[in-house]
Amino acid sequence: MDQIESKLNSLGLKIPQPLKVPSDVKTPSVWVRLRGDKAYISGHGPQNHDGSVAGPYGKVGTNDVSVEQGYESAKLAGLSILGSLKRELGRLDKVAAWLQVRVMINTAEGFTKTADVADGFSDLILTLYGREVGTHARSAIGVQALPVNLPVIIDALVEIMPDT
Amino acid sequence: MDQIESKLNSLGLKIPQPLKVPSDVKTPSVWVRLRGDKAYISGHGPQNHDGSVAGPYGKVGTNDVSVEQGYESAKLAGLSILGSLKRELGRLDKVAAWLQVRVMINTAEGFTKTADVADGFSDLILTLYGREVGTHARSAIGVQALPVNLPVIIDALVEIMPDT
Amino acid sequence: MDQIESKLNSLGLKIPQPLKVPSDVKTPSVWVRLRGDKAYISGHGPQNHDGSVAGPYGKVGTNDVSVEQGYESAKLAGLSILGSLKRELGRLDKVAAWLQVRVMINTAEGFTKTADVADGFSDLILTLYGREVGTHARSAIGVQALPVNLPVIIDALVEIMPDT
Repeated sequence: MDQIESKLNSLGLKIPQPLKVPSDVKTPSVWVRLRGDKAYISGHGPQNHDGSVAGPYGKVGTNDVSVEQGYESAKLAGLSILGSLKRELGRLDKVAAWLQVRVMINTAEGFTKTADVADGFSDLILTLYGREVGTHARSAIGVQALPVNLPVIIDALVEIMPDT
Repeated sequence: MDQIESKLNSLGLKIPQPLKVPSDVKTPSVWVRLRGDKAYISGHGPQNHDGSVAGPYGKVGTNDVSVEQGYESAKLAGLSILGSLKRELGRLDKVAAWLQVRVMINTAEGFTKTADVADGFSDLILTLYGREVGTHARSAIGVQALPVNLPVIIDALVEIMPDT
Repeated sequence: MDQIESKLNSLGLKIPQPLKVPSDVKTPSVWVRLRGDKAYISGHGPQNHDGSVAGPYGKVGTNDVSVEQGYESAKLAGLSILGSLKRELGRLDKVAAWLQVRVMINTAEGFTKTADVADGFSDLILTLYGREVGTHARSAIGVQALPVNLPVIIDALVEIMPDT
């Protein structure tokens, strides 16, 4: 087992099953586009270990989803990304560097805690990969709408180690 | 004529003329930033073949713009991008790989069909380029406002073949 | 002093001090992720020379923030980015090419002048770096919410000159 997945398991977390896409969502795009030494990662939402989409749904900072739940949703979106990377790369420790991350949060007007939500993702990645590999440029924005009313989606760019 | 443009024409579509930017919009940025083996593509909205901006304007999922019209607008934004790439690269078959795409949709609160709108772009690119070259990482988000009240803008990153 | 910083000073502008992050915002991410020949730049908001966050806060195009103030805020976000690059690279003229920029503007429904706001950033960069180095692909979108109710944040990707 690779080092990152071991660390993940020691946190009581597991690589989730592939996302079961809701039947009314087509996906002509892919979850991870691997090309050269880069993996371009599609917007991932929170998912449960069994592959189901993870609620709560709706707008963070309203009665739908609290900031704390938003933080947890961002973490679950991170686990979804790790699942996609694992299936694409074989091993999570093939990530050489996290580069740029965009956290898009479903919010109502006047919400100002986008960074607090985004930390759910960043804290997970930094805990697993450490600062040298895991740190990343990040933008955290509040948006009007997301696919299937998810509370957050996250996309990313990572550098992959060369095959040896 | 290049293979991609031939396929485009066989679909009854044509590379559009350069966008006629509305007179109150300045453009200090460029439509395509070519550098090394990458083309960085600015946010493009839907445009008609004659270079005029293509309506309908406003928010997808309201009376302004239906989901079906949003799908068509995303396709027209794709044609606008192909026009910019053609003018920059000379030939559309110089694209080696579509990498990462962001679809930003002008929506009202509660809209959940962002993926359905984004498919207007993805379906076009996959039809033209096939899965190996055309597939891409994608994020589809609903935003509050877009330039000149466009229903959708799309930006992208593609890899270009080396000159031979 | 490097050429870009000289030009900046001749415009009556100065590299600002490091941003004083509001105490309730954690930053597990970094302002600039340097890797290979690329600098991946986090979302930066407007800041004053002394490192304080620069108002006005709120939504551009409402009574909170006029379009003209939004333009100025985008320029101040540009200065914040230049400060981060200066501290990371040592010299601003180590930027070989501006590549792709995303301008995310805090707006209310119905706002259509996102490009006018984004020009505050693009005009600054093009004035300092000239067209060959400074031009960039750009997307300018209106979003629902930004960290600490900033009027605009901007992220970017630039190419760095190799060390000689």
